[in-house]
Amino acid sequence: MRSPPPPHFQSTVSVQKLRRFNTLILVFRLCSFCFSLAAAIFMFTNSHGSHSPSWRDFEALRFVMAANAIVAVYSFAEMGVSIWEILKGNTLFPETVQVWFDFGHDQVFAYLLLSAEAAGTALVWTFRGGEICTAVNTFCVQSYISIGLGFAGFFFLGFSSLLSGFRVVAFIINGSRFHL
Amino acid sequence: MRSPPPPHFQSTVSVQKLRRFNTLILVFRLCSFCFSLAAAIFMFTNSHGSHSPSWRDFEALRFVMAANAIVAVYSFAEMGVSIWEILKGNTLFPETVQVWFDFGHDQVFAYLLLSAEAAGTALVWTFRGGEICTAVNTFCVQSYISIGLGFAGFFFLGFSSLLSGFRVVAFIINGSRFHL
Repeated sequence: MRSPPPPHFQSTVSVQKLRRFNTLILVFRLCSFCFSLAAAIFMFTNSHGSHSPSWRDFEALRFVMAANAIVAVYSFAEMGVSIWEILKGNTLFPETVQVWFDFGHDQVFAYLLLSAEAAGTALVWTFRGGEICTAVNTFCVQSYISIGLGFAGFFFLGFSSLLSGFRVVAFIINGSRFHL
Repeated sequence: MRSPPPPHFQSTVSVQKLRRFNTLILVFRLCSFCFSLAAAIFMFTNSHGSHSPSWRDFEALRFVMAANAIVAVYSFAEMGVSIWEILKGNTLFPETVQVWFDFGHDQVFAYLLLSAEAAGTALVWTFRGGEICTAVNTFCVQSYISIGLGFAGFFFLGFSSLLSGFRVVAFIINGSRFHL
């Protein structure tokens, strides 16, 4: 009677754990993609006729739009990478490159998105009670919604960054993603 | 003829390395303290008579002032902790608490300071060419300087955060700060 060898058993458990971990990352990526895409679209459509204010007139709103679009594209690409890893059981790039790439970009884009949202918030604060909101209230409301969605995108990106940071540490300790 | 035992020799090298590492952290802390304190003072004194604009009238500038003050206090405390560690060769709190405390607070305060500076920048952008800068130009210039100093403080805080993150990883791997 042969029982399966312990290393193989160990490895199966690790693979299951890793798959669960990767699925969690994928969910966070999906959320940050949805929120930042929605924020970018809300901001992009935020112009109401040629005599009304447009997001293009304000640096801070252009920054919000750009940062959200960048994060949406990045999250979409990272979703593809995650799905590849879940399906194939292997990272797209070599493992060392992949874990550091993910963590580094998560950190930088989280700082970028947060500063964009903070800048946008400070700008729309100055609109309150001013001419712009009285004349075209939709412009202000749409800006608020876009910035709110962007903050939600930032939170999910922050969670992804925590998980990919954890992955870097696990990788440094064990030399592999497999032993979580 | 007796030669010093290898473990002791190893430990001496590690202690020297650790001391150099701690000195580097101390320098970064000192820089972030100086810059954020200067930024807070520049903002705090940025009010020119009762009929002129004051930093208290703008949420974003109050946020810049508060964030810089918090970071200055935190950096000052962390300088004390670093000096203690360099002199006594031991962390002030238990080692696990200390490394996670440093890293966690560095991260949170870096995000806080960056968002404050971004908000401040977005606000002072709206001043350009407006009444406020024409009437009291000093107010605008002083705001610019304060925000610039705050960004410098953020960079040094970010460097400290990298080093304390490295310390956390070293601590997790070796169970001690000593083997860098």
